[in-house]
Amino acid sequence: MSSEGAAAKRQRSNKDVPYNLIYWPGIPGRGEFIRLTLEEAGAEYVDTAQVEGGVDEVMAYVKGEKPDDKTNPPIFAPPILKHGDLVISQTPNILLYLGPRLGLVPGVEDDPDALYKVNELALTALDGLSNEPHDCHHPIASELYYEDQKEEAKRKVEHYVKTRLPKFLGYFERVLNSKASGEGPYLYAGKLSYADLVLFQCLDGLKFMFPKAMAKLNKEGKHSKLFELYDAVGQRPKIKEYLGGPRRQKYSSGLYRYYEEFDIEG
Amino acid sequence: MSSEGAAAKRQRSNKDVPYNLIYWPGIPGRGEFIRLTLEEAGAEYVDTAQVEGGVDEVMAYVKGEKPDDKTNPPIFAPPILKHGDLVISQTPNILLYLGPRLGLVPGVEDDPDALYKVNELALTALDGLSNEPHDCHHPIASELYYEDQKEEAKRKVEHYVKTRLPKFLGYFERVLNSKASGEGPYLYAGKLSYADLVLFQCLDGLKFMFPKAMAKLNKEGKHSKLFELYDAVGQRPKIKEYLGGPRRQKYSSGLYRYYEEFDIEG
Repeated sequence: MSSEGAAAKRQRSNKDVPYNLIYWPGIPGRGEFIRLTLEEAGAEYVDTAQVEGGVDEVMAYVKGEKPDDKTNPPIFAPPILKHGDLVISQTPNILLYLGPRLGLVPGVEDDPDALYKVNELALTALDGLSNEPHDCHHPIASELYYEDQKEEAKRKVEHYVKTRLPKFLGYFERVLNSKASGEGPYLYAGKLSYADLVLFQCLDGLKFMFPKAMAKLNKEGKHSKLFELYDAVGQRPKIKEYLGGPRRQKYSSGLYRYYEEFDIEG
Repeated sequence: MSSEGAAAKRQRSNKDVPYNLIYWPGIPGRGEFIRLTLEEAGAEYVDTAQVEGGVDEVMAYVKGEKPDDKTNPPIFAPPILKHGDLVISQTPNILLYLGPRLGLVPGVEDDPDALYKVNELALTALDGLSNEPHDCHHPIASELYYEDQKEEAKRKVEHYVKTRLPKFLGYFERVLNSKASGEGPYLYAGKLSYADLVLFQCLDGLKFMFPKAMAKLNKEGKHSKLFELYDAVGQRPKIKEYLGGPRRQKYSSGLYRYYEEFDIEG
């Protein structure tokens, strides 16, 4: 058997199993980008957040006890995806793996470069609409409590809401108005991609974190396509069912947080 | 011709051209991760930083005048890679595209999953050893001058140097000691990958930005494999030639910056 054939066989035999999401229980967090992708595709998956004692599994990876094999490097932080023998981390990396498998990279069968366009959009959404909001409540250090960096947080939020948030929303509105977005409500090639699911989750988290600012931005009408995308994703049957069901966890003290002092109009 | 055949033909005909890196002149910045990848591979490329008036090309993308076609979404920020008709942005995304083409993803020919492991390592290095150092001098807002956020920056640097920097270096030392790193000085499968080049550039930038802290960490000996990787990459013939040559730009007020008040031992 050629080495290519052997590899293909190995892939098949190891991967005829459900996906396993390894992530902290109790918050949607960064795991939610992956959950929405799995849910939209109707993929079979096991989620440590839904399993009793699942947190022990998370801890085994965080402490470096797992993985401990010849093919998977240690991981830095959850979310982690285990699929057969494969163990990978980093949100955009997991999405990159799942996207083409789950039919969420439009046109990738004919044009492999479609992957880099969807990945680019997902990375930009995660940078500006997920990592930066996180840093709003932890501008100095992730290891300190919010209460120990409240002053700096307040200042960062003011800039974020006035400058960065409209800049990123404006960028995605521009993407939605571009020729490359095609017809319909989605970012790329006229079809749903995992970048749309990422953007949906970012907007949902931002609406929770900055309700006044997001309401004002919606009312102004400058980002109408973006809010249409939000509605379109939220109305997709599998997403709608998931959002209303028991697996969707509530926002609390995770990535997107509500603090009254953050709730400014901008 | 099948659609697959047509796509393959289109790819070939459009991509028999040099790579085009579109990035700001005057700083190594985020463009440097891409330059090192191209240089190590001996790839032919055009760099706007080395072309008179190259900044106009960068600005055309930043202003959204380019790209303006049916296949490439607008870009948010440089670095940008143009290759034939393809235009993509986001540092880890560009590396993901270049890596397999330039032979910098060990074993990917036999095991496509190798890509996700190298991408994971590159993303983690960029997060903790490039984006976080950037945020050290801009903890409140990218749009403000450093001078307008000096107090917050000082506090962030203290935490970064004492907590985050050793945490990330410790993680990569753990990767280098793992079974998955294989024999030799590199992160994955015993061979050079683009993640090693990313990590090299991060360490090089950190040595410039935090000379005392990096010297202390080196002297302590807890990260000996990491500093061996740094030396091994720096001694590779093409990298060594590039680093000593005219295309390597000096650090100044970009991603990695030297401020006396940042130069603490930790």
